[in-house]
Amino acid sequence: MSELDVLQRLGRTLAERKGASAGTSYVASLYAKGTDAICKKVAEEAAETIMAAKDGESAHLVYEVADLWFHSLVLLAHFGLSADEVLAELERREGVSGIEEKAARKNS
Amino acid sequence: MSELDVLQRLGRTLAERKGASAGTSYVASLYAKGTDAICKKVAEEAAETIMAAKDGESAHLVYEVADLWFHSLVLLAHFGLSADEVLAELERREGVSGIEEKAARKNS
Amino acid sequence: MSELDVLQRLGRTLAERKGASAGTSYVASLYAKGTDAICKKVAEEAAETIMAAKDGESAHLVYEVADLWFHSLVLLAHFGLSADEVLAELERREGVSGIEEKAARKNS
Amino acid sequence: MSELDVLQRLGRTLAERKGASAGTSYVASLYAKGTDAICKKVAEEAAETIMAAKDGESAHLVYEVADLWFHSLVLLAHFGLSADEVLAELERREGVSGIEEKAARKNS
Repeated sequence: MSELDVLQRLGRTLAERKGASAGTSYVASLYAKGTDAICKKVAEEAAETIMAAKDGESAHLVYEVADLWFHSLVLLAHFGLSADEVLAELERREGVSGIEEKAARKNS
Repeated sequence: MSELDVLQRLGRTLAERKGASAGTSYVASLYAKGTDAICKKVAEEAAETIMAAKDGESAHLVYEVADLWFHSLVLLAHFGLSADEVLAELERREGVSGIEEKAARKNS
Repeated sequence: MSELDVLQRLGRTLAERKGASAGTSYVASLYAKGTDAICKKVAEEAAETIMAAKDGESAHLVYEVADLWFHSLVLLAHFGLSADEVLAELERREGVSGIEEKAARKNS
Repeated sequence: MSELDVLQRLGRTLAERKGASAGTSYVASLYAKGTDAICKKVAEEAAETIMAAKDGESAHLVYEVADLWFHSLVLLAHFGLSADEVLAELERREGVSGIEEKAARKNS
């Protein structure tokens, strides 16, 4: 079981809960509240990530980034999307950034 | 080449650039500016994620979540951490959440 | 010249610049970029306010709250609104909160 | 009773409640929870301000900016500060900005 499985399994679970009624889970209740409620959680977790970083507490920072990524995944699932698209976008940039890096090295 | 490789390769690249001088790349310049500058980017990308969600534009949302995750990874790397710890935390919760889910199903 | 004049004069200035072309001032360029650009500044200044608070630096905190209020005023002006409406809303709540306070005191 | 009185009376009320026990009011409970809890509210209200702006709903925007300013005032009061310092800072910038404006007009 690799770590990638975490994002994939999480994505499947988040997608499945979209059909569930609000009272059955935390995520189902977030979906029911709608886009603004999910966005508010993303903002809140971003703020907590920043505060953990300011405190310089590694374990707390990891915890808050996990919260931030989790609620990003809920937001993506709310729009029928998943981590796959985000990872594909990061992979696409990696290629571009590699080229830019080479150009930067040539110029410097 | 699986998608997990993206997060791992990205993590390695971000860790490597910590030793580089500020002028050599965008990430090296962010490290040089310090914690507040990286946190500010996390806040900015969270805001852009929210605005893309409000616009209901899927491609834009994916792009902004990629930016948000990328800058989360820079922040983690700044503290000697990586996606591995975040994925492990999400996996740990998955187990807990699984138990909670069962409990919820029994009760309902 | 009272301090209220500051918010009123600032509001008048911000309203006036809405007609100006983008190159004439910082605020005119923000209006030209549109709602998302102004919102992004609000998010950024909120993050900087939080970081100044975490640092416990009073002068820095005042500076960042001034930035946050300033960009809130730009956002309001972008929608034809001003500090007047915000102060009226705060005054309205004050009345409500006064009643609530009395109720709380009776009950305790 | 001018609108300035709102910020001043609000500042006095917020300062007074710093001595109160957590159960007596919303603000007293926020002080008791500490800096992170107040900062989290500032972040949350900034996010709601942005979402109201994206919806283009004026009344909602005014409401959320009032929430944002209110929690900024709580944060200031938590550090023994008030709106006075923020308004003074905005007034100080106004002078600077006036000079810059004149210079800009001369140059254009």
